[in-house]
Amino acid sequence: MRRKTMEELDRPSAEEVNKSAKNPLIVILDDVRSMQNVGSAFRTCDAFAVEAIYLCGFTPQPPHRDIHKSALGATETVNWQHFPTIEDAIRSARNDGYQILAVEQVHNSVMLQNVNYQGTKTALIFGNEVTGVSDKALSLSAGCIEIPQWGAKHSLNISVSIGVTLWELVRVNTSNR
Amino acid sequence: MRRKTMEELDRPSAEEVNKSAKNPLIVILDDVRSMQNVGSAFRTCDAFAVEAIYLCGFTPQPPHRDIHKSALGATETVNWQHFPTIEDAIRSARNDGYQILAVEQVHNSVMLQNVNYQGTKTALIFGNEVTGVSDKALSLSAGCIEIPQWGAKHSLNISVSIGVTLWELVRVNTSNR
Repeated sequence: MRRKTMEELDRPSAEEVNKSAKNPLIVILDDVRSMQNVGSAFRTCDAFAVEAIYLCGFTPQPPHRDIHKSALGATETVNWQHFPTIEDAIRSARNDGYQILAVEQVHNSVMLQNVNYQGTKTALIFGNEVTGVSDKALSLSAGCIEIPQWGAKHSLNISVSIGVTLWELVRVNTSNR
Repeated sequence: MRRKTMEELDRPSAEEVNKSAKNPLIVILDDVRSMQNVGSAFRTCDAFAVEAIYLCGFTPQPPHRDIHKSALGATETVNWQHFPTIEDAIRSARNDGYQILAVEQVHNSVMLQNVNYQGTKTALIFGNEVTGVSDKALSLSAGCIEIPQWGAKHSLNISVSIGVTLWELVRVNTSNR
């Protein structure tokens, strides 16, 4: 098995990515604390061609060396905006026609494998590393997605949750690419 | 949407997890450098009920404070072993009846959404953060899984790759749970 070279991976340039069609998905980070998690979110959103990242509240913003360390340049290829509050971010996404879903373990959540995405414009809220999605954000969401888990622990790392959720939503489109 | 309490999440205890049926999956970490990535791998493998983690070469081992920070106790609920070399780990898994697949971007890889897992005993090799799965490990693998990506960057964070790959393999079983 021969490894693919950089050329053979045939990745688009930053300029091409900025011009190319994205998946109609927005990732909203609500009071996420860690620079590393923010950087990883950028890298994952680049890989899965996400439309934009909304950074809310005290979520750190690029440029910052510690975000760059895990983003590895993806802050240049994913659109992002900062919003002072989660309400502002949700209002903006909703005005642009996005349905608002939180990723959290709540009653009446939809398990990830059952989400009926089909390319609907969707904004996904991911919350703080310790406290999760805030009650305010939950109250403004149309519904919640839950990642099924079978272990003794109570959550996945937020970077992993973002990756798993985005993959599940974009995988249904992968045969068309 | 009311958040689930710890009791309502109904997670099994560490003791119950240790006794319960796991997915027949082994995660092999080959010369992974970062304590945080190892800790995150434990947490993800706990969530997705993975049989065992094999730590190879210079991959750091528990107990260590920096692994614990991201594992959050999952080193107690996921079986793990250290092997001096990747060859030792692969030999052990193969002797136990596991097929060996690397997760890497190579020619003739199988795209993740096309992997036909169906509960076959499978060991997945994830490589170093910078250099990826080693040539030695590739040469000893039956095949490679590739996560499709559409961005300008060339890879996902290893923690995210582990989460996405495991989710895709266990999701097909989730309706039975």
